[in-house]
Amino acid sequence: MRCKFCEAKAQVELKGRGLALCREHYLEWFLKETERAIRRHRMLSPGEKVLVAVSGGKDSLALWDVLHRLGYQAVGLHLELGIGEYSQRSLEVTRRFAEERGLPLLVVDLKEAFGFGVPELAELSGRVACSACGLSKRYLINQVAVEEGFRVVATGHNLDDEAAVLFGNLLNPQEDALVRQGPVLPEKPGLAARVKPFYRFSEREVLSYTLLRGIPFLHEECPNAKGAKSLLYKEALNLVEKNLPGAKLRFLEGFLEKIQPRLKGEEPLLRECERCGYPTTGGVCSFCRMWEGVYRKAKKRRLLPEKAQFRPQVVPRRGA
Amino acid sequence: MRCKFCEAKAQVELKGRGLALCREHYLEWFLKETERAIRRHRMLSPGEKVLVAVSGGKDSLALWDVLHRLGYQAVGLHLELGIGEYSQRSLEVTRRFAEERGLPLLVVDLKEAFGFGVPELAELSGRVACSACGLSKRYLINQVAVEEGFRVVATGHNLDDEAAVLFGNLLNPQEDALVRQGPVLPEKPGLAARVKPFYRFSEREVLSYTLLRGIPFLHEECPNAKGAKSLLYKEALNLVEKNLPGAKLRFLEGFLEKIQPRLKGEEPLLRECERCGYPTTGGVCSFCRMWEGVYRKAKKRRLLPEKAQFRPQVVPRRGA
Repeated sequence: MRCKFCEAKAQVELKGRGLALCREHYLEWFLKETERAIRRHRMLSPGEKVLVAVSGGKDSLALWDVLHRLGYQAVGLHLELGIGEYSQRSLEVTRRFAEERGLPLLVVDLKEAFGFGVPELAELSGRVACSACGLSKRYLINQVAVEEGFRVVATGHNLDDEAAVLFGNLLNPQEDALVRQGPVLPEKPGLAARVKPFYRFSEREVLSYTLLRGIPFLHEECPNAKGAKSLLYKEALNLVEKNLPGAKLRFLEGFLEKIQPRLKGEEPLLRECERCGYPTTGGVCSFCRMWEGVYRKAKKRRLLPEKAQFRPQVVPRRGA
Repeated sequence: MRCKFCEAKAQVELKGRGLALCREHYLEWFLKETERAIRRHRMLSPGEKVLVAVSGGKDSLALWDVLHRLGYQAVGLHLELGIGEYSQRSLEVTRRFAEERGLPLLVVDLKEAFGFGVPELAELSGRVACSACGLSKRYLINQVAVEEGFRVVATGHNLDDEAAVLFGNLLNPQEDALVRQGPVLPEKPGLAARVKPFYRFSEREVLSYTLLRGIPFLHEECPNAKGAKSLLYKEALNLVEKNLPGAKLRFLEGFLEKIQPRLKGEEPLLRECERCGYPTTGGVCSFCRMWEGVYRKAKKRRLLPEKAQFRPQVVPRRGA
């Protein structure tokens, strides 16, 4: 098959879009499509400073690469979560990417900041690892963004991620989650905006970009993700997509355009957390509540000295 | 494994419900659950006359059987659709069921009434077979119900059917279809109410009832259903259900309780069709429009004499 735009051999075939492209034109198309999503949803202004949440996987590294190439001041933020060698390798690949390109990277080490990584945090808080980890990531990424003066955070969520989250939220309907889902979460006092410039790209499309650009990334899944519901939802949606190319995109866009606007209810009232000052609907935010509980239990078990005090503020290291 | 209610060996295990039952208690449970759904949604009043749409498959025969046993005046309506031997066998098995029980059966033969069965209808109307067939069934079942004085029509749609339709309507969001979906469609002038007493039973649960009651039914799928999207949606949902028992029921009930009430918009204004007098949103209803087009084309091709005229009214035969 030939590239749609030149005589070269097509390297990537995009079934749902009826497109086949050579390496060069694929990379070009990918950049243009990202820029189009950014403009369409007013995610960023030209050249704007943006904090990119970077795990070291294909999606986040591709996003950092693309935002940099599109002329945004893209600063990486990596969270070292203390999940054994997986976390070490994640940091290494992220750091190498930043060093090779001379891009600024911030690093927050969970264990260094609070004394425990995700495995111990999960155990001590009585939460499932993915829940304790997700809460920590959302909280810390926002804290760093606000403290370091970023209006907006970008994440590498792709179409497969977003469609799977939507499917999960429809299978167990949670109105507030359905209302919040989308490519842009606007900023509020104490909350940086969150944008997902890749939300229209399938996982395969992002992977193709990362491979064709020759970006080394961490291929392994987080060991905690095994058996995660999101993987099951992705599998079910992939079965549909395989038989009806374009189904995932129609599903997500259709929901965002036709159903979500009807669901929007009242915005929850946000107050300042009594501990950290960041927005919460209750008195103490879930992040501070979780960690205070963990500290109490850790002291009982003598894992922490009696005088140890949980302090929510982190200071990121300049990593690259 | 033992029955939950007696010492007998369990014949049916209901995973999503954490129940195992012997034959006798399963049949009892199935009846009670149907009655509960009927009461909860006020589908029927005690002993009410109801027209049951009967294809000859496991769901519709089980429904007819259950409604009769629950004391409703259940009259069967079978449409002979002219889909070759499949339709002949459907009619035979339906007729035998009615005869053996002495239950009243009405039969409408599409070919006899209008000159063409589904295959020719699809070809002459330029519609996909399932679309032409579905439109004809909805229209004719309603017409017979209204003309024969039934307030309400019952169909054998089960949880798998309903969840698949919902999934399809979410994958390609159609607001009006999402608003209309549900276990009860209320009656309106010229429109009989439509109820689905089995909407909470999985396909497997209905099958178990039919088998344990020893009801002979047509095992084959309609030959036109091959490759139907609904089968793909069912497969995807079954993948989820297998790993998360109860997922389909939570999906459907969650939608009906939490999302659908937010979607309800204005009711479409219904007028009388200029040809048949039955409700429609336009001037001539889709059923009459389809058949008038078919008659025009059939005359051109000399499949019908020039003086042939489409008449929408049918007179059902007393079939058993």
